[in-house]
Amino acid sequence: MKFVGKHILSVSEFDRAAIERVFAVADQMEPYAQRKKATRVLEGAILGSMFFEPSTRTRVSFGCAFNLLGGEVRETTELKATSIAKGESFYDTARVLSGYSDVIVMRHQIEGSVAEFSEASRVPVINGGDGANEHPSQALLDLYTIRKELAAKNKSIDGLSISLIGDLRFGRAVHSLCKLLSLFKHIQFNLISPPELSLPDEYIAAMRDAGHNVNQSTELQPNISSADILYVTRTQEERFPNQEEANKYKGLFRLNQAVYTQFCEPNTVIMHPLPRDSREAANELDNDLNENPNLAIFRQTDNGVTIRMALFALILDVVDQVDAHAKPVNWYTAKRF
Amino acid sequence: MKFVGKHILSVSEFDRAAIERVFAVADQMEPYAQRKKATRVLEGAILGSMFFEPSTRTRVSFGCAFNLLGGEVRETTELKATSIAKGESFYDTARVLSGYSDVIVMRHQIEGSVAEFSEASRVPVINGGDGANEHPSQALLDLYTIRKELAAKNKSIDGLSISLIGDLRFGRAVHSLCKLLSLFKHIQFNLISPPELSLPDEYIAAMRDAGHNVNQSTELQPNISSADILYVTRTQEERFPNQEEANKYKGLFRLNQAVYTQFCEPNTVIMHPLPRDSREAANELDNDLNENPNLAIFRQTDNGVTIRMALFALILDVVDQVDAHAKPVNWYTAKRF
Amino acid sequence: MKFVGKHILSVSEFDRAAIERVFAVADQMEPYAQRKKATRVLEGAILGSMFFEPSTRTRVSFGCAFNLLGGEVRETTELKATSIAKGESFYDTARVLSGYSDVIVMRHQIEGSVAEFSEASRVPVINGGDGANEHPSQALLDLYTIRKELAAKNKSIDGLSISLIGDLRFGRAVHSLCKLLSLFKHIQFNLISPPELSLPDEYIAAMRDAGHNVNQSTELQPNISSADILYVTRTQEERFPNQEEANKYKGLFRLNQAVYTQFCEPNTVIMHPLPRDSREAANELDNDLNENPNLAIFRQTDNGVTIRMALFALILDVVDQVDAHAKPVNWYTAKRF
Repeated sequence: MKFVGKHILSVSEFDRAAIERVFAVADQMEPYAQRKKATRVLEGAILGSMFFEPSTRTRVSFGCAFNLLGGEVRETTELKATSIAKGESFYDTARVLSGYSDVIVMRHQIEGSVAEFSEASRVPVINGGDGANEHPSQALLDLYTIRKELAAKNKSIDGLSISLIGDLRFGRAVHSLCKLLSLFKHIQFNLISPPELSLPDEYIAAMRDAGHNVNQSTELQPNISSADILYVTRTQEERFPNQEEANKYKGLFRLNQAVYTQFCEPNTVIMHPLPRDSREAANELDNDLNENPNLAIFRQTDNGVTIRMALFALILDVVDQVDAHAKPVNWYTAKRF
Repeated sequence: MKFVGKHILSVSEFDRAAIERVFAVADQMEPYAQRKKATRVLEGAILGSMFFEPSTRTRVSFGCAFNLLGGEVRETTELKATSIAKGESFYDTARVLSGYSDVIVMRHQIEGSVAEFSEASRVPVINGGDGANEHPSQALLDLYTIRKELAAKNKSIDGLSISLIGDLRFGRAVHSLCKLLSLFKHIQFNLISPPELSLPDEYIAAMRDAGHNVNQSTELQPNISSADILYVTRTQEERFPNQEEANKYKGLFRLNQAVYTQFCEPNTVIMHPLPRDSREAANELDNDLNENPNLAIFRQTDNGVTIRMALFALILDVVDQVDAHAKPVNWYTAKRF
Repeated sequence: MKFVGKHILSVSEFDRAAIERVFAVADQMEPYAQRKKATRVLEGAILGSMFFEPSTRTRVSFGCAFNLLGGEVRETTELKATSIAKGESFYDTARVLSGYSDVIVMRHQIEGSVAEFSEASRVPVINGGDGANEHPSQALLDLYTIRKELAAKNKSIDGLSISLIGDLRFGRAVHSLCKLLSLFKHIQFNLISPPELSLPDEYIAAMRDAGHNVNQSTELQPNISSADILYVTRTQEERFPNQEEANKYKGLFRLNQAVYTQFCEPNTVIMHPLPRDSREAANELDNDLNENPNLAIFRQTDNGVTIRMALFALILDVVDQVDAHAKPVNWYTAKRF
C-alpha cells in the first residue's frame, strides 16, 4: 500500500505492512503530539474539514493533528450543505471543494458517501466516518493503543488475548478492530454480548479463517480473566428501532473496580471507543476505575491525534521532513500525557 | 481607484484600470493559489469572516485565500447574531467586530447591509454577498476566468461574443458580469431566456449606451453558435413566489455534449456561476460535459481563490511583499489545477 | 496568585497584586493587540475554544488574542455536545478534550459548569462565562479600561468615583466589577437603579466592609455629576420571568449628549459592558454620544483582546518571550485604536 496522494476510506485497504508503517510514523509523531517539540512542516498547507454530521472529538482531533504539523484548517460543520439543497451533485461539490485545500477529512451520515465524494475529489480524502460503515482512523488508533499498552508490558499484538464486551452487533469500532487484528497472528478473541447483539457471523468466520481462536459468551466474569485487553463498548442506542428496545441491553455488563480486582489479571488494560455511557442505567465502565492506571481510554483519544498526524504526514509525503522543521516548545505544557 | 484600506462593496466601484490591476495581481498570486510556492506575507494578520447567511464555497474560498497568504481566519457562521437580538445596532456590531481583525468579509441576506456595516467598520470590509444585490468577488472571478480562457486562445475580452443563458432576471452573478463587461470594448451579448426571466431593461440600456451589441432571444440553438463563452445559469428558485412558479422555468435550456457538438464552435468555453442544478427537472448543464476540456466551471471556482488573494493583497498593501515572503511547498500537491 | 498552568474561573481568585500583574502584562501586549508589531511566541500552540452557548464577541475576542500571540484555535460552537447526549460525563468530556489543546476557553449556560469541567481538565481552563455566575475576563477588561481612561487624566483607580446605572440586580458584569474595585482604596460607588433591580445586599455589605462609600439612588441626574466613570448597563431581559416584566424597567435611565452636557463633568468617561440596547424603548446610551471622545465603549472591547492576550501569556508562561519573537507588521493597518 502506498500512501502518498491516496485516499483513506476503509480499514480493508490496510495490510500488515501498511499498519506497521503507519505505526512507525506515529511513533515519530508522538513527541510532537505530546508537545515535547513542535514542527512547521505543513506551514502553508490547508486541511478541508467537512463534517456533514456533527462531531466534536473526531473533528477537533483531526484539526489539532493538522495544526500540530503546522497547517491550517478550514472547517464546515453545517448539517445541510446549501448547494446540495439547490440541486448540486455530490460530484460538483467534491470538484469545487477539492480546489480549496490540500487534503480533506469528511464525515457524512450516508454509508458510502465519502467514497463517492473521493472519486470526484482532486485531493486526498480521509473518511472521518460514513454512517455505520467505516471510520478507519478510529480503528487504527485503537490498534495503535493496543500495541503501545502491550509494548509497555513487553508483549506484542501477535498472541494477544482480547475480550470484546457489549454491543458487538452495531459497534462500528469493534467491527473495524476485528478486521485489523485479524491481520496479526494467533489472536484469542473473547466475544461477550447478549445473543441478540453478537458479532455478525461473517466477521467471526473471517477471523476463524485467518487462523484465530474465537469464543462467544453471554457472561462477563469467566471471559475476562485471561485477557490482555478488555475492549468495552456502549450500546449503540441510535441504531435500535426505539429507545425501549435499546434500554433492554444497557447495563448487562458492567465493569468496575471490584469486578476488575476479583476477576482480572493485575495488568489487564481497559479500553473503550468512547463516549462511555455513564448514566446509571448503562454505566458499562464505572467511574471508580478512573484512577486505575490500566484504564487506557484517555490514552486512546490522545493516540488519535498521533495517528492522524501520521496519516497526514504519509499522505502528504512529509514524513522525512517533519524533524527538519522541528522547533522547541516555548510555552507551559501540562504533564498530561 | 485606490485599493489600500478600502472597502470592496460593489462592482460599480471598478473602472477598467482597477480591473486590470486586480487581474495583474491575480496573475502574480496564481502560483501561490496553485501550491507551486507558498508565502507568509500576512503571518500575524486576521481575517474576520462574518457569514450571517450560510455559505460553504464563498466562505471557504475567502478563508483559504487568506490562509494562503499566511494569515489567520476567525469565523462566525451563526445565523442570528445574539447581540443584535438583544437590541444592538448594526453600528455597534461593526465598531466592535472591526476591533478584532485586520479585514472583514461579510455576507448578509439584507440588501445594502454590508455597505451599512462598512460605514461603521474601522477596517476594510469586502462584500461577500448582500441578498440579491452585490457579490463583487464573484463577478471579478467570472471576468478573470473569461480573460484567462480567452488568452489561452489568443483572444482578449475586447471583441468578445458571450451568450448568457437562463434566468437573467434574478441572477445576481449575470447582472454584475454585464456591468463589468460593459467596461470593455465591442462586446456581443446574446441574451437567451424565457421572456419572463429576461435581463432587466436598465442593464440592456446601459450595455447599449456603452456601445455594445445586444440581442435577445428565447431560443438556445441559433444563439450559441458564434459565441466565445456560454455563460449558463440556474433558475434562482428562491426568488420566485413559490416553487411551482419556479419549476415552470426549469429545464427550458439544456446544454449537453450533443447540443454542444452540433451547434458550437469547437473551442467554445462553458461557464456557470455554480451551483448547477443537476436534478432531472433542471439539468441546465449536463454531466456528460464533465470531460469536455472547455467546461471551465471548476477553473472558475479555482480562480475565486486567486482573485480573493489579489483583493486581500491589494487592500492590505502587500502586493510588493508577497514574493519576498515566498517559501517552497514541501508537501505532496495533487495535479489539480 | 500564580498564573502558570492555572485555571481562571472567577474574579474571586484575584487579589490586588494579581490584578496589577495582569495589567502590567496587558500593557506589554498592547502594541501587539494594536498591530504595531506582531509576535509568534505561541506558534504551534492550540487553544481549544468550547462554546456550549452561542457567543460572537467573547469567542472571537479570545480567538484573536490567541492568534495574535501566534497560536492556532480549534473551535466548537455546537449547542449540544453529541457525546453528552449519549450519556458521557462531564469528566470524560474534559479528559478527552484537554488532550487536544494547550489551553481551553469555555462558555456554558450552567453555573459552576466550567469549574467542574476544569477539575477534570488536564490543561488550564479559562471561564468564558458560566450562566449568570462568572465571566472574569470581562471584569478584568472593564477594570483595565477604567485604569487606562483614568491614567489619561492623571488619575488612578484609588479614589475613583463611579456611577453604576441600570439593572444592577442581574448584571453579571456589574457584580464582578464591584468585587474587583473593592480591592482598591476609597472608591465612591453611586448605585442608580429602580428599587427592584438594585445591587444585591451582600455586594453592598462587602463593599462597605472593605471601606468604600456606597450610596444608592433611583434617580440619574444628581448622581452622575461628580463621577469619573459612568458605567451604564442593559436590562438583562433574559433573566426576567417574562418580557412584559422586563419591559417595565427599560428606558428608565437614558444617557444622551444633552444629559451629559448638562449634568456631567466635561471629562466623565462613559462605559457599558455591551451590547447596548439601541431600540427606542430602551436606548440606555444614546447614539448621539457616538462622537463624544469620552465614550469608551469600543475601547473597552478593544481592551478585551489585550487582556485576553495577557491571560494567555501568563498562564502559558511566555510573558518574557513575547518580545523575543516579535516581527514587524508588513500590512496596512487602519488607524483604529
